[in-house]
Amino acid sequence: MSISKNVKLPHMFYGGDYNPEQWPEEVWLEDMRLMKKAGVNIVSIGIFSWAVLQPGPDTYDFAWMDRLMDLMAENGIMADLATATASPPAWLARLHPESLPVDENGARYSQGSRQHYCPNSKAFRLYGQRLVRKLAERYKDHPALAMWHINNEYACHISECYCDVCASEFRLWLQRRYSTLDELNARWGTNFWSQKYYDWEEIVLPRKTPTYPNPGQQLDYKRFMSDSLLDAYLGEQRILKEITPHLPIMTNLMGAHKPLDQFEWAKHMDVITWDSYPEPTAGIPVFAAMQHDLMRSLKGGEPFILMEQVTSQVNWRQQNPLKRPGVMRLWSYQTVAHGGDGVMFFQWRQSWAGAEKYHGAMVNQTGDENTRVYREVVQLGNELKQLDGIVDARVEAPVAIVFDWPTWWALELDSKPSRDVLYLDQIKQYYSVLFERNIGVDFVQPDADLGKYKLVLAPTMYMVAPGVADNLESYVQGGGTLLTTFFSGIVDENDRIHTGGYPAPLRKVLGLCVEEFDPMLPGQTNAIQVEGLGAGTDGEYSCSLWSDIIRLEGAQPLARFTQDFFAGSPAVTVHAFGSGKAYYVGTQGEAAFTSKLVGGILDELNLAAPLAAPAGVEMTVRVGNDGQRYIFVLNHLAVPADVQLPQGAYSDLLSGGSFTGALQLAPNGVAILHAN
Amino acid sequence: MSISKNVKLPHMFYGGDYNPEQWPEEVWLEDMRLMKKAGVNIVSIGIFSWAVLQPGPDTYDFAWMDRLMDLMAENGIMADLATATASPPAWLARLHPESLPVDENGARYSQGSRQHYCPNSKAFRLYGQRLVRKLAERYKDHPALAMWHINNEYACHISECYCDVCASEFRLWLQRRYSTLDELNARWGTNFWSQKYYDWEEIVLPRKTPTYPNPGQQLDYKRFMSDSLLDAYLGEQRILKEITPHLPIMTNLMGAHKPLDQFEWAKHMDVITWDSYPEPTAGIPVFAAMQHDLMRSLKGGEPFILMEQVTSQVNWRQQNPLKRPGVMRLWSYQTVAHGGDGVMFFQWRQSWAGAEKYHGAMVNQTGDENTRVYREVVQLGNELKQLDGIVDARVEAPVAIVFDWPTWWALELDSKPSRDVLYLDQIKQYYSVLFERNIGVDFVQPDADLGKYKLVLAPTMYMVAPGVADNLESYVQGGGTLLTTFFSGIVDENDRIHTGGYPAPLRKVLGLCVEEFDPMLPGQTNAIQVEGLGAGTDGEYSCSLWSDIIRLEGAQPLARFTQDFFAGSPAVTVHAFGSGKAYYVGTQGEAAFTSKLVGGILDELNLAAPLAAPAGVEMTVRVGNDGQRYIFVLNHLAVPADVQLPQGAYSDLLSGGSFTGALQLAPNGVAILHAN
Amino acid sequence: MSISKNVKLPHMFYGGDYNPEQWPEEVWLEDMRLMKKAGVNIVSIGIFSWAVLQPGPDTYDFAWMDRLMDLMAENGIMADLATATASPPAWLARLHPESLPVDENGARYSQGSRQHYCPNSKAFRLYGQRLVRKLAERYKDHPALAMWHINNEYACHISECYCDVCASEFRLWLQRRYSTLDELNARWGTNFWSQKYYDWEEIVLPRKTPTYPNPGQQLDYKRFMSDSLLDAYLGEQRILKEITPHLPIMTNLMGAHKPLDQFEWAKHMDVITWDSYPEPTAGIPVFAAMQHDLMRSLKGGEPFILMEQVTSQVNWRQQNPLKRPGVMRLWSYQTVAHGGDGVMFFQWRQSWAGAEKYHGAMVNQTGDENTRVYREVVQLGNELKQLDGIVDARVEAPVAIVFDWPTWWALELDSKPSRDVLYLDQIKQYYSVLFERNIGVDFVQPDADLGKYKLVLAPTMYMVAPGVADNLESYVQGGGTLLTTFFSGIVDENDRIHTGGYPAPLRKVLGLCVEEFDPMLPGQTNAIQVEGLGAGTDGEYSCSLWSDIIRLEGAQPLARFTQDFFAGSPAVTVHAFGSGKAYYVGTQGEAAFTSKLVGGILDELNLAAPLAAPAGVEMTVRVGNDGQRYIFVLNHLAVPADVQLPQGAYSDLLSGGSFTGALQLAPNGVAILHAN
Repeated sequence: MSISKNVKLPHMFYGGDYNPEQWPEEVWLEDMRLMKKAGVNIVSIGIFSWAVLQPGPDTYDFAWMDRLMDLMAENGIMADLATATASPPAWLARLHPESLPVDENGARYSQGSRQHYCPNSKAFRLYGQRLVRKLAERYKDHPALAMWHINNEYACHISECYCDVCASEFRLWLQRRYSTLDELNARWGTNFWSQKYYDWEEIVLPRKTPTYPNPGQQLDYKRFMSDSLLDAYLGEQRILKEITPHLPIMTNLMGAHKPLDQFEWAKHMDVITWDSYPEPTAGIPVFAAMQHDLMRSLKGGEPFILMEQVTSQVNWRQQNPLKRPGVMRLWSYQTVAHGGDGVMFFQWRQSWAGAEKYHGAMVNQTGDENTRVYREVVQLGNELKQLDGIVDARVEAPVAIVFDWPTWWALELDSKPSRDVLYLDQIKQYYSVLFERNIGVDFVQPDADLGKYKLVLAPTMYMVAPGVADNLESYVQGGGTLLTTFFSGIVDENDRIHTGGYPAPLRKVLGLCVEEFDPMLPGQTNAIQVEGLGAGTDGEYSCSLWSDIIRLEGAQPLARFTQDFFAGSPAVTVHAFGSGKAYYVGTQGEAAFTSKLVGGILDELNLAAPLAAPAGVEMTVRVGNDGQRYIFVLNHLAVPADVQLPQGAYSDLLSGGSFTGALQLAPNGVAILHAN
Repeated sequence: MSISKNVKLPHMFYGGDYNPEQWPEEVWLEDMRLMKKAGVNIVSIGIFSWAVLQPGPDTYDFAWMDRLMDLMAENGIMADLATATASPPAWLARLHPESLPVDENGARYSQGSRQHYCPNSKAFRLYGQRLVRKLAERYKDHPALAMWHINNEYACHISECYCDVCASEFRLWLQRRYSTLDELNARWGTNFWSQKYYDWEEIVLPRKTPTYPNPGQQLDYKRFMSDSLLDAYLGEQRILKEITPHLPIMTNLMGAHKPLDQFEWAKHMDVITWDSYPEPTAGIPVFAAMQHDLMRSLKGGEPFILMEQVTSQVNWRQQNPLKRPGVMRLWSYQTVAHGGDGVMFFQWRQSWAGAEKYHGAMVNQTGDENTRVYREVVQLGNELKQLDGIVDARVEAPVAIVFDWPTWWALELDSKPSRDVLYLDQIKQYYSVLFERNIGVDFVQPDADLGKYKLVLAPTMYMVAPGVADNLESYVQGGGTLLTTFFSGIVDENDRIHTGGYPAPLRKVLGLCVEEFDPMLPGQTNAIQVEGLGAGTDGEYSCSLWSDIIRLEGAQPLARFTQDFFAGSPAVTVHAFGSGKAYYVGTQGEAAFTSKLVGGILDELNLAAPLAAPAGVEMTVRVGNDGQRYIFVLNHLAVPADVQLPQGAYSDLLSGGSFTGALQLAPNGVAILHAN
Repeated sequence: MSISKNVKLPHMFYGGDYNPEQWPEEVWLEDMRLMKKAGVNIVSIGIFSWAVLQPGPDTYDFAWMDRLMDLMAENGIMADLATATASPPAWLARLHPESLPVDENGARYSQGSRQHYCPNSKAFRLYGQRLVRKLAERYKDHPALAMWHINNEYACHISECYCDVCASEFRLWLQRRYSTLDELNARWGTNFWSQKYYDWEEIVLPRKTPTYPNPGQQLDYKRFMSDSLLDAYLGEQRILKEITPHLPIMTNLMGAHKPLDQFEWAKHMDVITWDSYPEPTAGIPVFAAMQHDLMRSLKGGEPFILMEQVTSQVNWRQQNPLKRPGVMRLWSYQTVAHGGDGVMFFQWRQSWAGAEKYHGAMVNQTGDENTRVYREVVQLGNELKQLDGIVDARVEAPVAIVFDWPTWWALELDSKPSRDVLYLDQIKQYYSVLFERNIGVDFVQPDADLGKYKLVLAPTMYMVAPGVADNLESYVQGGGTLLTTFFSGIVDENDRIHTGGYPAPLRKVLGLCVEEFDPMLPGQTNAIQVEGLGAGTDGEYSCSLWSDIIRLEGAQPLARFTQDFFAGSPAVTVHAFGSGKAYYVGTQGEAAFTSKLVGGILDELNLAAPLAAPAGVEMTVRVGNDGQRYIFVLNHLAVPADVQLPQGAYSDLLSGGSFTGALQLAPNGVAILHAN
């Protein structure tokens, strides 16, 4: 289901979380007026309303929500209605203390903040699903109801529970996965350190142990927790599907969020929505762009909704600076540029009590219309009304980056050669080169069909599960270009070494063997001498973090280490394989090297930015169902930027202006161009 | 009750904690001799004697204490007799494990150090109060008994207990405070995050939660713990008052100690005593001076007793350097200068076993009379005998600083705009200017009668409880000068935002509105341009930590920001209101700016130091009941300092010398001058 | 029992941990071939095999071990057979959860890694000892069995357990130690802080307390835990001694490992073995050399076996770099040079699953013969075959350093003058001077017979137990030279101050009294002016960490402080006492000072290196039973080093070459020279 075309709201979504139970009802009327002034067309309600909706195990109070939904319908504001299960009421914690989660030391969390539930708790599931059924039956035909919002930010705070119920469910999960204890013992390698199991009941959760717990156990526990939370999601979803089969259902994800295997989750969600809170003082939000691309990729390129961002400042960093004028607008358009069909905020009206009262909002606690922030909110909302033509348009992406949650989990378990090899760090390095060059990127799972991509990057693909090596070989054999890096191809799906010499399953396609690897200390460097990589790249570059000691088996060296006892041995290689090429980078080069290496490959593949513009101007292309190409141009610079236009006239959807030859964007300026 | 004039000891108190149960009785005799040589007139006994006094639930042993008290009486040493409840005996922990406190993760503390009691424990209260009654009845008429010392350093280590008994007491405390759950729900804002309570029994303590607990709950928990400890104090005090109504009763406080609302405590104490341990390597002890002023202010200016300081080095810092020669004497006189009517130490004789054996004392474990430290102790004790005229004299203080424990608690709860805005930091910045200019300062609660002060400073008065805004308005209206700073007037007594635009309750008196605030990162700065503030202040100053974006509503700008998108907007303002003026500082200026701003105000108000002296010379004035003014002059410099004297001859109480025109103080030198 | 001459293997031991249960049996055959190629003569088996050997409380499976032992015997590989109790099986944790250890907060550890047993657990002891008996009876006559290996690395992860069983055992241990509560109360100083005990049952373990627990209690708890683990060791040893009285028994120690009082342990072990993992990037492994000397000293100079080191890289540092080529060989010979009669590794074949799969091994997971690492392993193994003549030779050591575990424990308890005075730091400073000068060192307990040493160093001998002061006095009286340093002679064996003026029991031999001491802050320095210490040492040196303020009582000053109020007072002294001299260093001098001070003493005593060589060349001397002196020469430099030979021809055991006049060693080169 592509959300934008299928629901009651075939426009860019614009709105925010709306928690009116914090305010007297006279404020609600004022809210409606201010929302309409701002172009708001949908708000998320009920997210933290369980305790207000259900005063006790057997009593409910929907009257206020009835009035709210009616008021919204009257005012043309649609509801993204939450199932309200993200924060159980105090009475549930009292009645069922076993529903509270437990930490790895065995300490139980208390009620009093939010997300205080064990995902496998029977009581949490039972009472939560009862409430979901009541809500669905009550509002299924309400004109304001546009979409269902299950729970909220799963695993934001509690991504692991170590209670006895979870232990019991973990054992059942393992039985389903491995059928026999022999298989489990083999997969976890329990013959080492005397960990062999002879009865399923002997298996415990990886709670506090004297030293490293078994890595296979740790990895499966991460899978289990992602599955447990997904199962909680599905329990609610099944009820909603039964009662309102016509309505889209989702939960708001959190971007590159480690605890949930979101490719798995996405299979069950009707539309992807997520919450984005870029570091406000870190310059151009490359990581936000990357996460937009990742979220769009979860369902194969379908547009997503940005469910939460902040207008100004949040309350949970150590210091919480404001977004400067124009930044919220610029970053909102970045969302749309990367495939967003909606821009929403946490929250509509700033709280006057509780833990989030210093979290910015679309209007402040006083409802002041004359603030800078509200003026920006009004401007953006009214601009977005002009973008109906963008809705459901797809983003062009000729390059793919392999991304895999189990690989992430396994790579960052303890007892590794270096604890500094972090998955996102490695992915970001390669994504940044593509971002700077304004090349569109999809993220794909390792076993995805890669045929449509000219280039596939797979940084630190530590885990190679069954079928993956074959997939990559076929891709390169058929003419594709693959690049992978150190510490790839090391383990199977249970974090067991692929024997046969590193990186055993990838030796053939890469044409090499890694005899040893040498992690570097923080601050330590080596250097590589590049030769024959292409014009303008020769010379010496610094490298750090890791050195592979490579034995060539068909690959050609592109760069060699210049220091240490392995000076002269290959650091970067390329292997002609079938009709394609496989690159290997056996160290972490400085940014200039990575940029030149990947840039050279892009040049060779004739992959270039849509338009010529200075560094700091971001561009993407979205293509409508009618084939119309929209070029998004975003100026992240503090100075005006000149953008060169190819032959012909271009119109800007936002300003309505028409341009030929060139276009100047103001600082923080945005244009959405299409050829006339 | 003003201690010094009303008890058996109408002199400067001089002595220390005395724990003779650590030593054979022959050492006691030597102690008496050494005490008398040193001018000791009172010692605190029994502070950690519970286990020695009471071998079991039903058995007591007072024989040794009888001998001790008699020996002291014979030697003219008075007893500050402790109730001995600060460290319960091991048998109590064994018999009543529920009397041990519990941490926020639910882990129970063990016996084996000290202060291992839950303040709400029934067993602790019962056995403790039984002991208090026995002590009071036994020694009520003993000639050595001068004063009661309840418990010791409440909340030094255990300021919070999270046990089930405390949870139950917390619910009762809340019922007394709010009467109805509706009121509690409103005060805590529980409609947000699904925290609404329908039964008192649902309320738990703010133990470990997935994320920020409810701020209202956290704040009331801090109130509750302060009250719980106070209730433990009062339980003992009632018995003592009943049996010895004529004797003063107190406990030793710990200065600007966050856990206890000491203005509340002071209402119940006969005299303020406190323990002061200035950082020995941090230069002039401004913070110690500030705490002396705070402690003196707790009972409206009544003199206090310094119950503990150290002669030389403590044992609980990471490194514990010595006080250099003369420093202990100098800092002791600082105590007297700020209203101290006694100077005492922990402890008399250094321990030879246990956890404090490396904590310095008046004599060492060997009783060596020939040490530097003991020589200084003897000198000071004999000098203090000359200061009977100072006893009960009051300190002159034309300026007040608003200080409020609930404001401190609320400001430093989590989920704030910046975790770097710390209450004491802000108070200290303004106190320091007054200290450097040798202007006397009182600390006052926000609802205090301010009429007698020429200037009131209220840095970061984050919380404005009912009545406070009116109090400040009246003060300024009537001609007072008020200065407050950023993040003031934000919340009510339950940490709920005052709606109506920051700082809503103070907008009128300040003549402005703060539309946005922008916390700065560590190391980040802006700058302010000062204009029209007064001679010698114009120019640009650096600022950091926080920027307010101010909309003027009657106030005049005194300085404007020079950088960022709000460059040119007001940073510092003054508002003529009624017959007075209200200053507002919307950022943290560099020290030079704060000094010039406050200095300018002081000049305008004709507030100046008692005498002219170089920077580094501290001065205060105490005024005797007879109107005699004593000017304390303390040279914190490493070089001699010349002090100018006004017309007429001055006598120095310490040296007995008489001076006209000028006086030279040696390094670490002290004079107590009065006009002849 | 001197292992090398008495068992079935009168050669240098060479091999490693062997965990074949991780691999199919066909791999075992290949392992045998590769071991023989590498010169392996012994491997440690069964260390983590409990779960594989015993599937349940009443079932055992020895078949695979039978096949393994037979295969080893066929191939001439001896077995160091482990008792397999280092990691209990999962069924034991399930059946006896109370066998799992508990941390100081009361949280119980889980099964799932290793070493998850309470050393006092009845179930652990019972099931462990049953298994030991089965193993001993089954293999007692097996031709492959050469030695018993009890458990593994005791206290590596779990050095303290705080469970109720341990609490109960602690009380019994205390009753045995002190007989009466009066004695215990006196020893612990419980009259302070109300800690007096009236019933043994009142005593608890030093679990989480509000502040510092009683130091006497903490110190005895450390003794108790060392004894508890030793008792677990002895429980297994008794069975083995009964069944195989002819075979050596040991456990592998961990060098300067704080939790175990290894001088006590050594009394019960037949041979010392230990595991050494020097920091791979820290230059010359001085600390490894020091620990070799310490381990050799545990049994009065008997050779030890290096039971574990790594060929290349480990997996438990934050980053795990490789050992560079030649370094493993060089450091292996360092082991032999300091008294090692065997060089073994963890492990034979690198794991392909589990927590140690990135820990290097003698061959990799693939069994690749062509790796750098395996080639180095083969070279070393075959070289060691030439060293039969070294086996059982003793190391020459004219100097002793006092080393004492209870002193270490007491010094590093909390509530000290400075937490920066760390035992190993202080020992290492003085050891380093001797290492650099290639002077052999033994480590001795404070009450050891010191007569055979020309010089005894006792840095920071904080604790002086009964008899120790007399021992040192007699040594000096009789002509010995003693050097001790600040914070020595302070407490007795219960961490109680020796009254009488610091350092009371050593005042007589040192001829001084320390009136005060002044710990310095990090970065803070003072300086000392040296005069009269000897040629080339006069001048000013920096000092830090600590300053003693010394009163001379017969000693002569060698250096005086130049700064602070105690400038001019003595910092370093010497006292002629009887026929000997006692030096005292009252601060921490910079390295150059320590080197000159100790160097001057060595010169005076005519103690010099065996040969002349550049700095960076290490030398030791081992003397065979036949009196033959073997000079080990190790070049730690990255350049060739010239070593001067005295008159006559020298042969090198390794190269077989013969040299006169001089010898040049390559980088990382080693020679073992003896006069022809």
